[in-house]
Amino acid sequence: MRMAELSETTGVPVPTIKYYMREGLVAPGRPTGRNQADYGEEHVRRLRLVRALVEYGGLSIAVIRDLMGQIDNPDLEEFDLLGAAQKTVTQRKEARPGPYKDEAEERLHELLVRRGWRIRTNDPAYRTAVGVLATLDEVGRHDMIEALDSYAEAAEKIAEADLRLLGGDVSDRERAVEIVVIGTSVGDTLIATLRRLAQATISERLYT
Amino acid sequence: MRMAELSETTGVPVPTIKYYMREGLVAPGRPTGRNQADYGEEHVRRLRLVRALVEYGGLSIAVIRDLMGQIDNPDLEEFDLLGAAQKTVTQRKEARPGPYKDEAEERLHELLVRRGWRIRTNDPAYRTAVGVLATLDEVGRHDMIEALDSYAEAAEKIAEADLRLLGGDVSDRERAVEIVVIGTSVGDTLIATLRRLAQATISERLYT
Repeated sequence: MRMAELSETTGVPVPTIKYYMREGLVAPGRPTGRNQADYGEEHVRRLRLVRALVEYGGLSIAVIRDLMGQIDNPDLEEFDLLGAAQKTVTQRKEARPGPYKDEAEERLHELLVRRGWRIRTNDPAYRTAVGVLATLDEVGRHDMIEALDSYAEAAEKIAEADLRLLGGDVSDRERAVEIVVIGTSVGDTLIATLRRLAQATISERLYT
Repeated sequence: MRMAELSETTGVPVPTIKYYMREGLVAPGRPTGRNQADYGEEHVRRLRLVRALVEYGGLSIAVIRDLMGQIDNPDLEEFDLLGAAQKTVTQRKEARPGPYKDEAEERLHELLVRRGWRIRTNDPAYRTAVGVLATLDEVGRHDMIEALDSYAEAAEKIAEADLRLLGGDVSDRERAVEIVVIGTSVGDTLIATLRRLAQATISERLYT
């Protein structure tokens, strides 16, 4: 198909498609003449993936470029590909050194031991969780820190649902990354919106 | 205290403090002489709140400015203040019109009816949830849509934990907004990191 049709099929405007191509998120088409190229289903699919990650995954163009580079890098084996993709969509935000951080490290470690979770202190999610706990301490939200086990229990339920969905065919690399990356980043947004909808219901029950 | 001490106490660099003041996120100090001002505990507290929202709440300066305007607006009654604050930290991202959107609207509506959740189709969280479902459909993640009830169940658990934490003293406006806004935005990050830590554990159990 031509560029105009690609744009119509996906609903992505032509200038945006060209921008994604320049940024290396979408492969160029097969040249068919001067200033013309042919696009296939793989372009439609990739464009939809990129848009989903931008709009509802909250990912930056730079992060998406990294992800697409991983899909297109044949040296990355499947298992490593999925691990790399998961890491790429996980924010890493260190706490500032100091007593809040030390206390947060200790609390998180205790939580993971208590729940029998795997402990890898260098994981981006681990580092960010330490930062979140240090911040909650600093702004005086000790009630949230004390409720940590309730949140961890809910997180286990989510992770169980996530993992039930895995286990499809991962020999299709693009599909495998789609599953991990959409599941994680768009999944975070899904959970955040469901949380608010549930809050509205429960607070109505409590206060009316 | 002087600016230097304010910076030392909070760990926020002086240029950043000055930037927040120019943007209206933090009130100026009490002038004590030419080019000098005095800052109090309220400055320390506000700076910590702003930093928490920037660093772990993922909020923009514009959104935080709106929030601070709400705290400082005496015409907003407490209940409205909390509602406004919650809305301000909830992303609203509409789906593009079309069959994906229509189907997503229907599915979300059915979910809320099934679970007995409050239905307000104009809520930002509702609009964004429709967009997420339309996107999942478009990129072929029908398995996630089918798992919607599992995610909703986990979201209920989270919301129950959230609501147990409310009910403190809301006559302190800054505190009330802190509770809602930190709970929601930094809470989303907490849940996202716990989800990943739980995933790592469960996937290890499954695959090793």
